[in-house]
Amino acid sequence: MYNKVTPEILEELAAVVGSEYVLYDIETLHLHSEDETEDLNFPPEVVVKPATAEEISAIFKIANEHKVPVTPRGGGTGLSGGALAVHGGICLSMARFNKIIEIDEKNFQAIVQPGVITQVFQEEVEKLGLFYPPDPASRGSCHLGGNLAECSGGPRAVKYGVTKDYVLGLEAVLPTGEIINTGGRVLKNVTGYNLTQLIVGSEGTLAVITKINFRLIPLPRFKKVILAAFGTLEDATDAVAKIFQKGITPSAIEFMERAAVKAAEERQNKKFPNSEAEAQLFIEVDGNYPEQLDRDIELIAEVVEEFNPLDMVLAEDEQKVQDVWSLRRGIGEAVKSISPYKEEDTVVPRANMTKLIRGVKEISAKYGITTICYGHSGDGNIHVNILKDKLDEKSWEENLDTAIREIFELTVSLDGMISGEHGIGYSQKAYLPIAISEAELELMRKIKGVFDPNNILNPGKIF
Amino acid sequence: MYNKVTPEILEELAAVVGSEYVLYDIETLHLHSEDETEDLNFPPEVVVKPATAEEISAIFKIANEHKVPVTPRGGGTGLSGGALAVHGGICLSMARFNKIIEIDEKNFQAIVQPGVITQVFQEEVEKLGLFYPPDPASRGSCHLGGNLAECSGGPRAVKYGVTKDYVLGLEAVLPTGEIINTGGRVLKNVTGYNLTQLIVGSEGTLAVITKINFRLIPLPRFKKVILAAFGTLEDATDAVAKIFQKGITPSAIEFMERAAVKAAEERQNKKFPNSEAEAQLFIEVDGNYPEQLDRDIELIAEVVEEFNPLDMVLAEDEQKVQDVWSLRRGIGEAVKSISPYKEEDTVVPRANMTKLIRGVKEISAKYGITTICYGHSGDGNIHVNILKDKLDEKSWEENLDTAIREIFELTVSLDGMISGEHGIGYSQKAYLPIAISEAELELMRKIKGVFDPNNILNPGKIF
Repeated sequence: MYNKVTPEILEELAAVVGSEYVLYDIETLHLHSEDETEDLNFPPEVVVKPATAEEISAIFKIANEHKVPVTPRGGGTGLSGGALAVHGGICLSMARFNKIIEIDEKNFQAIVQPGVITQVFQEEVEKLGLFYPPDPASRGSCHLGGNLAECSGGPRAVKYGVTKDYVLGLEAVLPTGEIINTGGRVLKNVTGYNLTQLIVGSEGTLAVITKINFRLIPLPRFKKVILAAFGTLEDATDAVAKIFQKGITPSAIEFMERAAVKAAEERQNKKFPNSEAEAQLFIEVDGNYPEQLDRDIELIAEVVEEFNPLDMVLAEDEQKVQDVWSLRRGIGEAVKSISPYKEEDTVVPRANMTKLIRGVKEISAKYGITTICYGHSGDGNIHVNILKDKLDEKSWEENLDTAIREIFELTVSLDGMISGEHGIGYSQKAYLPIAISEAELELMRKIKGVFDPNNILNPGKIF
Repeated sequence: MYNKVTPEILEELAAVVGSEYVLYDIETLHLHSEDETEDLNFPPEVVVKPATAEEISAIFKIANEHKVPVTPRGGGTGLSGGALAVHGGICLSMARFNKIIEIDEKNFQAIVQPGVITQVFQEEVEKLGLFYPPDPASRGSCHLGGNLAECSGGPRAVKYGVTKDYVLGLEAVLPTGEIINTGGRVLKNVTGYNLTQLIVGSEGTLAVITKINFRLIPLPRFKKVILAAFGTLEDATDAVAKIFQKGITPSAIEFMERAAVKAAEERQNKKFPNSEAEAQLFIEVDGNYPEQLDRDIELIAEVVEEFNPLDMVLAEDEQKVQDVWSLRRGIGEAVKSISPYKEEDTVVPRANMTKLIRGVKEISAKYGITTICYGHSGDGNIHVNILKDKLDEKSWEENLDTAIREIFELTVSLDGMISGEHGIGYSQKAYLPIAISEAELELMRKIKGVFDPNNILNPGKIF
């Protein structure tokens, strides 16, 4: 189906980017064979590190001519295998696209290359009193380009939206070699179809992004956090809905079930408050006026009181806020260290969160697997970690796929979708038809064909 | 190229929707031959009023079979001719899709048919303490479906975004007859390509929307407005940039040049404050805490003071706020009543607004035409009204197209786009290549081909 990378191709690639940026030693190939998705491993045949859109265009010309697949790669922190060269070929490393080109303080915009690390960008704009809200857990090492590919979210999405909501325009290289500029540097735009939003979230299958126009917002100056423990999931979920009904949009409402907190306690070797509670909510508000946040916190506390809280802890100062966040941020790693696992990225309307989690527990009980749930309850985005734990190898292998299918069928029946912020990529593509009809899939495949007639860009993903 | 609507086709259509909903009397055809775009007039051959997605699917089957164009129509308030049957054929009236199906108070969502009038929807959700921010000038008669087609904005976009930012999912009928459901009822979603955002803003050329899943936000309880008059455009534009830099995101910053205010004074037969000022800004803040708004207003007033204001008027109570808005809302109609005109919908990064307006004035002086500018300065969206005024017919006809081209070339050179919220439709399509490269246009045309292989849905628009 695809051709192998030959010495002739290597030479052609070297002529484009320089031989020091065409790497095929075992170590480099190994480093580029994995991301953060469970235990997938797909070494590319060569890693190429271009520095300009024009070089990428030339690489595509070579790839089309020889029918060799090209898989773009950012920080390698993806959770659905999107950056893995599942058909071998060329790994297109975006590591050299690492410049913040401009931060425009008058217009609250920035022009950035896709290989910039998310946290680096966040911190640079914050120095100027500006705010880039998307905040994926891997922000210390993920790339903005990967965030765009997967439309990353994170805890602040409930108030501030996800990556797509900050992208005004793109420079991108089509797999056919053309360099295009979509959208622009404007906040409103109906000048032709919205190619920007078609490319964002397309998981690196339609084009390679080489420049991003972001919009930014003013940095809120203050934050306060309440940690609330509940005896039941139902109480926690109902409290979430009620907080919004009071007219408050928190900047985060994170949810952790008991097992998630326990795992973090063990991993971090710390004792956390109320770790025996069935459900904990971590509720943050932000803004420019501390008195207003006090009022918000007061109202939130009143709501929490209505739902039988076991306890409520207020984190007012910066250090306490940081401590609570560090507990929350440590959960993913802690849960995944327990045993082999598979992480699902379910999302439902927030009021359906309890039904989702209760259903997940029924399904796991049926198959003898362990599940640990945590995530962003303000937007109903629950990460379901399915753990092998003490289950025997045979039952794990036999039942995992069925259990995932049932979880996703349940999710869709609750008006949900099967990925909120991790993408479909390679690891979830078998499940996509649970959520998307054949008519839509056919549209998507044809759109892919418009952009990439030879199917050389990131093949084997999504569909 | 297309076939005419024959008696046989009329019968087939009547078999689908009932003969009372297949109308071809002169009066009905005339009513459906215009929208709010200058003096365009294109009567369809028949107006069909379906009530279900299935009926629209059946209509498309007839249209494909006979190769007859279908032009969907909402409230008929469009400003780029998008709803006009420029090739004749079937006008697909969405008037019977006028139900609010569900307002989900727990999840802050609503499911709505596209024929609901925007203001009706706004008022229904506000009764429940919810907020649907997009607010086009025509909100009293435009349809939500048309708002989606054109990705309408309005004054509040500067803080709350445009129509696309509130659309989570769609039911839509493809021109090939399939009924699809895009997106979902979730706030985060990377489950396949973002077909929702491809269809929103596609000006009714890709699919007919039959159901909309909206997200909503809590209704802010209070509003305050400052009206500030400046001696120069430069001062007004610089004040706008500085307000954001103070960490404030107003819920509207409207701009009016002297001639716009004068036109409104004449039309409304009222005297407005500071109507001799070169530029006026109308700045609104909203929120839940009046004290916070006082602080915002104080900070804004401090900023305004730095830029040599001629005057500042504070509208604190509801009645005064309404009065100022009614002045602002009356400008469009007032300006358009002066003489034959053409309205452009330029958008630039907000700091470039002065350069845009000064350039527009130079271009109009060169060709002896009159231009009046007003719009949404917070997001750089300036409506440039080109008036024939006292110009002779010959000069008007000879120079209008050149002047528009020059204005758009200037806009693009200032990092802007040629439509912020009105769309390209029919009236602007000749100018699209000024803003969009051939490679992108080719992608767009091919995407159109994927959705609509026989080009029967709203042909003659955008491209």
